[in-house]
Amino acid sequence: MTERHDAVEVITAKRDHAELSDSQIDWVLDAYTRGVVAEEQMAALAMAILLNGMNRREISRWTNAMIASGERMDFSSLSRPTADKHSTGGVGDKITLPLAPLVAACGVAVPQLSGRGLGHTGGTLDKLESIPGWRADLTNEEMLSQLEGVGAVICAAGAGLAPADKKLYALRDVTGTVESIPLIASSIMSKKIAEGTGALVLDVKVGSGAFMKDVDRARELAETMVALGSDAGVRTVALLTDMSTPLGLTAGNALEVQESVDVLSGGGPADVVELTLALAREMLKAAGVTDVDPADKLKDGSAMDAWKQMIRAQGGDPDAELPTSRERTVLHASTSGVLTRLDAMAVGLAAWRLGAGRARKEDPVQAGAGVRMHAKPGDTVTEGQPLLTLHTDDSERFDRALASLEGGIEIQEAGTPYDRTPLVIDRVAAE
Amino acid sequence: MTERHDAVEVITAKRDHAELSDSQIDWVLDAYTRGVVAEEQMAALAMAILLNGMNRREISRWTNAMIASGERMDFSSLSRPTADKHSTGGVGDKITLPLAPLVAACGVAVPQLSGRGLGHTGGTLDKLESIPGWRADLTNEEMLSQLEGVGAVICAAGAGLAPADKKLYALRDVTGTVESIPLIASSIMSKKIAEGTGALVLDVKVGSGAFMKDVDRARELAETMVALGSDAGVRTVALLTDMSTPLGLTAGNALEVQESVDVLSGGGPADVVELTLALAREMLKAAGVTDVDPADKLKDGSAMDAWKQMIRAQGGDPDAELPTSRERTVLHASTSGVLTRLDAMAVGLAAWRLGAGRARKEDPVQAGAGVRMHAKPGDTVTEGQPLLTLHTDDSERFDRALASLEGGIEIQEAGTPYDRTPLVIDRVAAE
Repeated sequence: MTERHDAVEVITAKRDHAELSDSQIDWVLDAYTRGVVAEEQMAALAMAILLNGMNRREISRWTNAMIASGERMDFSSLSRPTADKHSTGGVGDKITLPLAPLVAACGVAVPQLSGRGLGHTGGTLDKLESIPGWRADLTNEEMLSQLEGVGAVICAAGAGLAPADKKLYALRDVTGTVESIPLIASSIMSKKIAEGTGALVLDVKVGSGAFMKDVDRARELAETMVALGSDAGVRTVALLTDMSTPLGLTAGNALEVQESVDVLSGGGPADVVELTLALAREMLKAAGVTDVDPADKLKDGSAMDAWKQMIRAQGGDPDAELPTSRERTVLHASTSGVLTRLDAMAVGLAAWRLGAGRARKEDPVQAGAGVRMHAKPGDTVTEGQPLLTLHTDDSERFDRALASLEGGIEIQEAGTPYDRTPLVIDRVAAE
Repeated sequence: MTERHDAVEVITAKRDHAELSDSQIDWVLDAYTRGVVAEEQMAALAMAILLNGMNRREISRWTNAMIASGERMDFSSLSRPTADKHSTGGVGDKITLPLAPLVAACGVAVPQLSGRGLGHTGGTLDKLESIPGWRADLTNEEMLSQLEGVGAVICAAGAGLAPADKKLYALRDVTGTVESIPLIASSIMSKKIAEGTGALVLDVKVGSGAFMKDVDRARELAETMVALGSDAGVRTVALLTDMSTPLGLTAGNALEVQESVDVLSGGGPADVVELTLALAREMLKAAGVTDVDPADKLKDGSAMDAWKQMIRAQGGDPDAELPTSRERTVLHASTSGVLTRLDAMAVGLAAWRLGAGRARKEDPVQAGAGVRMHAKPGDTVTEGQPLLTLHTDDSERFDRALASLEGGIEIQEAGTPYDRTPLVIDRVAAE
């Protein structure tokens, strides 16, 4: 199928600023998946790509070659359109939990393949696994039948999707080659395209708690991914959203499930509701459904019904008591005034150190660990009031969690004007 | 001894155009030698270095860290000064063979640690191994005693010298990261400095048959190596020499030994004599010996005496018949005129394909294989006269050897002016 190439030829081409040919890209990713191209060769190529870039054709071909390395799902037999959402990762980002059942309640099926968390941002599967009985692993048949019946599924991506990406992602993690827009975009989009969704909405986070710290890089990533989706026939749109402070008032596993249930009950923090509705509207529009207002589905309880069906279909008990941590400690406001900073990275690191996240992928997470916030930036606080409650099963974790919050909280004198960053900063659609 | 670092930190620093600290360099090379930094991590770092460079301090520290990864030899107990020569590799480059005994005959000891050939340029040890009985492997004690007694030794570098370089060199070969001046310079100089020579003369080849095709890159490499030598207290000088056509009239193993013996007998091709004397004069000057003319030592037979002692000391019989190939074929001039091109790379590849060199490091070489030239660029030739004789033990090798010569030979009409490139193009000494 592909011409014969060799690894050094492909590496030196990119090293010397040449464009890689379709045949070189197809060959190198296939040979890497088969172990014919060695890890050290792919590491050198990844660094050359990071430093010398790839153009749109190369990124598109690279993405297709990663898709071709594994199976591709097909939901065209479903009776309703499909739409999915991907977030680049943020602190307190539980949006998938209320969003998937909400969109399902509006008549669009949501096939959400998710991952577990590594580092300071939590993983959707880790959060749902705090629900007693819930399981993340479904067969393709179970997934298809749940999508037809319930309309929403959040489950673990099978090993069969884009195995080249799986291998490359692990390699990039240890070789300093994560921060490349062509490699990030192709990694995300290869999985989402292979997953077989008809429409895709990307939530590209910007700010201290996000992978992309500045809006120009975030926009470049969003534009690259939207172009890749369009090239592959997936209707794709991206929102750039603020991640300078956590989303909502919780960061943790069971804590975030509870907040998601609050949103599905018609309550919950304003920012979580706002972003859930904004993303739901984009997903519905991209899937061609324009006559339903998702806000109505939150009010009339049908989103909550879909949530309960979705949790039950995967063995979970949506009415069970959620786990809580054994130990808690409260951080109080040191002075009165306006809370002007509650840094997303600081809170994310604290939640991670409390046990909500993992340092190595084989580590367990604590269902009850995390941070509950009692104020958000812009709020007026008084000296001695609770600002944050830290939750963990191991009290010896408090010190390091508190240390990570140092410098992350700022209270300025009352009357200090506070400029709220809009939650949705920009929207990127196909040209 | 060194601070704690981690591989991703060092890789991302160089990736992001930072200078590596002394501590980062020491740590990464030590950890790589111990296997704590993985091959794929060093591959990513090597590519970042190739693309983003290293400054003089970094290259110097990198070189020292490679030296520190192994043992360091010490010849300060010898009764005479030491000087060594290193060539970046050329076709027909047998200069080490007459040069080492010639310099020894002038009163300077030559501790020449050499390698075997890989690719189109031959290896000094491969050449000497065509002498019946000669052995390349000496203990450090044998080497020291031969240096004191005979004054010259050409032997295999022990595994103890710069093991980090050995590992890194093999990695660079398969990851497209060979062509980096900081990495080439530190690789060569770490071995030469660890070898303990007091003075060093570098023969940096330029032209089609050389690693460096253009003179600016060759000069940059020479300047970098001279600076590294000076930083390490080794009196170092470099000559840039022409490698657009082979040196002398032979390329092969026994063929080149015979030509070297001719030079030591006071004959031999003019270019081999010229370069041998030029390098000998530089070595003597760098070693502080200014009252001896090496040309006299070729004439009076003392260089030949030193050669015989050197060969005998390593088990060889300098008077034995040299091996010859079983098969020969002659390439004739297709027309009459001036030979304007006899390309070094073409001849080198032909000799390699005839069996003088190896494709993989575990392959054997043929002692008698190679190319004998009957004319050199600038010579007048007549149609049908022999131009080259190809030697091999396996006649099926002739076709591929002849194919590599296609386009490498050019004869223009009689009277065409031919501009001879000077053999020594430039000289680079410490500032």
